[in-house]
Amino acid sequence: MTANMIFRDEQLRWFGSEVLMRAGVPEAGARLVAETLVDADLHGVDSHGVVRLDIYLKRLEGGMIEAAAAPAVLRDHAPVLLIDGKNNFGAVAGQFALEQVLDSARRHGCGIAGIRHSNHFGTCAYYARKAIDEGFILIALSNASQTMPPAGGLRPFLGTNPLCVGIPAGERLPFVLDMATSVVARGKIIVAAEKKEPIPAGWAIDKEGRPTTDAQAALAGSVLPLGGPKGYAIAMFIDILCGVLTGAGYGDKVHNMYEDWVNPQNVGHLFIALDVERFMPQAEFRSRMDQYIDALKAEPKAPGVAEIFVPGELEHRTFERRKRDGIVLPAGVATALRGWGKKYGVELDGHASA
Amino acid sequence: MTANMIFRDEQLRWFGSEVLMRAGVPEAGARLVAETLVDADLHGVDSHGVVRLDIYLKRLEGGMIEAAAAPAVLRDHAPVLLIDGKNNFGAVAGQFALEQVLDSARRHGCGIAGIRHSNHFGTCAYYARKAIDEGFILIALSNASQTMPPAGGLRPFLGTNPLCVGIPAGERLPFVLDMATSVVARGKIIVAAEKKEPIPAGWAIDKEGRPTTDAQAALAGSVLPLGGPKGYAIAMFIDILCGVLTGAGYGDKVHNMYEDWVNPQNVGHLFIALDVERFMPQAEFRSRMDQYIDALKAEPKAPGVAEIFVPGELEHRTFERRKRDGIVLPAGVATALRGWGKKYGVELDGHASA
Ligand SMILES: NC(=O)c1ccc[n+]([C@@H]2O[C@H](COP(=O)([O-])OP(=O)(O)OC[C@H]3O[C@@H](n4cnc5c(N)ncnc54)[C@H](O)[C@@H]3O)[C@@H](O)[C@H]2O)c1
Ligand SMILES: NC(=O)c1ccc[n+]([C@@H]2O[C@H](COP(=O)([O-])OP(=O)(O)OC[C@H]3O[C@@H](n4cnc5c(N)ncnc54)[C@H](O)[C@@H]3O)[C@@H](O)[C@H]2O)c1
Repeated sequence: MTANMIFRDEQLRWFGSEVLMRAGVPEAGARLVAETLVDADLHGVDSHGVVRLDIYLKRLEGGMIEAAAAPAVLRDHAPVLLIDGKNNFGAVAGQFALEQVLDSARRHGCGIAGIRHSNHFGTCAYYARKAIDEGFILIALSNASQTMPPAGGLRPFLGTNPLCVGIPAGERLPFVLDMATSVVARGKIIVAAEKKEPIPAGWAIDKEGRPTTDAQAALAGSVLPLGGPKGYAIAMFIDILCGVLTGAGYGDKVHNMYEDWVNPQNVGHLFIALDVERFMPQAEFRSRMDQYIDALKAEPKAPGVAEIFVPGELEHRTFERRKRDGIVLPAGVATALRGWGKKYGVELDGHASA
Repeated sequence: MTANMIFRDEQLRWFGSEVLMRAGVPEAGARLVAETLVDADLHGVDSHGVVRLDIYLKRLEGGMIEAAAAPAVLRDHAPVLLIDGKNNFGAVAGQFALEQVLDSARRHGCGIAGIRHSNHFGTCAYYARKAIDEGFILIALSNASQTMPPAGGLRPFLGTNPLCVGIPAGERLPFVLDMATSVVARGKIIVAAEKKEPIPAGWAIDKEGRPTTDAQAALAGSVLPLGGPKGYAIAMFIDILCGVLTGAGYGDKVHNMYEDWVNPQNVGHLFIALDVERFMPQAEFRSRMDQYIDALKAEPKAPGVAEIFVPGELEHRTFERRKRDGIVLPAGVATALRGWGKKYGVELDGHASA
């Protein structure tokens, strides 16, 4: 084990896909899964980065992820589609669905896909940025296993179901909102627990329903929805659209990635792609976006604030920095990766030294 | 003036449409606008009820609302449509757009409409409940004039742009989320100011950026977005989809209903209608919704909590109560209505005594 915990993104991507392939994942899927994880690390969403390779591999080995299955369109009434992820990796189902909704948006102006029988698919922003690259708007939603109570509830009923909206701009950076519907993503509490750090008050309650700043107690209890009943209601509509509507799991029928070692997760997603050309020419839209962002960034700032940010901008800055300087992994994460590398005969530092 | 400040909904609907008609609004539009306002009162959203008739009439008389203009489809590429509200009442544009997206959803499985040149259209839930009545899911968004700062900002840049999602159920009440993206709707601060009551801490900042509990100072300053940067980001994507994308106003180009006496508001809306039948048979979906709601309502409750509510349920209870017991209007609101009644020769109590 080297003391150096800084890794280049190419290195992690190569390592992740090599291990996945040797664990039996077809090459395209292995590359895609590794790509989505490293993309999260590059953008500073450490909670959804290569730290998840460990749990993904455990579920793959346990047979809860079916890496050989090809996602399929169950009902093709474009612009509305129902897709079966066939319990493959969430990223494989997500990428398949993205291609379908973009294709539909090209032909019909919009594409709406519900996806059932999927798994954790990483950050929604990964798919949003892909849609933006092709000039489309994407709304991406996913449900997740139970971690948040309803308003007035005592224990988890909803996931921290993420809401994501990606919108292209012109010369400016695109708008990329990608957020957990909890006060914070549960992954951040996992990271705090691993680092043995406390969490801020207001993030979570313990399993008796008491406020807590102990990350372990929070993981045993519930993360709180953002903004009280409003965040609860947002998480709930996402659960309904992703789960109840698509035929995927919802509520306690989304199986916990970390706790259920029998059933596939049956996560559901919903994607809505929209072609701006149906409203106005791309160039006009992009120039309106730039005007909007310029006006926003020129707003007077509250005392002590250096800059006003467009959603996605902070992540973009982290991306540029980590592309250049590398990705620092906590020792525990690097150790876990090396363990998998050893099992499958892949050197974590193999690519860099090659 | 009678001491009795309780009104039946029929009475207020009749009064509102009579006054609007005598002020020059064609019958259908007058009935619709009165209907949307009273619907808000019935559901307990007092801030968006007949209290708004006053400002609607002022803008109508001032020529900023063009009640004779017929909304039109500018670009008909169903399932995606661009609609021009022609500066008519927001409710007239909203109802027109609703019919278009439901028609498209019937034919294509979904309908997405952007609306420009509109005005304040009341509560989004009004349109969502109409869609639900016909078995469709509706996502309804609107921008609004500047009342909320961006994260890190000092003064209003975004409106409290509402987010609404309506989803039908079976035997259970439908899911109706309809929320301002602020900690609370600005209308609630207006009501508090009218009642000369203070507002809770955390709702707003004054015009120097200081936290305030004074409703008047809050109205002169900014309402805060819910949940910090996340609420800001949600309000911003709504402004982009409703304003930048549709060709309506956005940011400071949405003219303030209470302050701008020259320009029409140029509010924008975005509606997405979805046919559940493209995913599964209606009956199956409705029964899944009922299972979901039953599971939610059976969840263990936090200490002191009597019941867990589905979004829309509290409003439905108020609706049933006010249908039965009537709508109580604050003296100031009733007085303003009587003033308009006097001007146009309509008795506020005319219908009830008839
Ligand atoms: N797949 C799943 O099951 C699942 C579940 C939950 C969350 N997630 C992912 O977790 C990730 C992290 O979520 P999060 O809520 O902790 O993210 P976050 O709170 O760090 O950021 C949320 C959003 O707000 C924006 N933002 C934050 N501060 C800002 C500021 N000052 N100015 C402007 N914009 C600002 C960010 O750009 C981002 O778009 C997301 O990528 C999400 O997809 C995934
Ligand atoms: N047209 C405009 O420009 C505009 C702008 C802003 C707001 N509005 C309207 O203002 C109205 C009020 O918004 P608001 O944010 O103050 O509403 P609110 O906070 O009272 O309710 C928001 C939503 O949360 C749900 N809810 C609240 N408490 C709950 C609980 N304990 N359990 C379950 N669900 C719960 C409600 O049913 C509702 O759907 C909305 O109708 C909105 O459309 C309109």
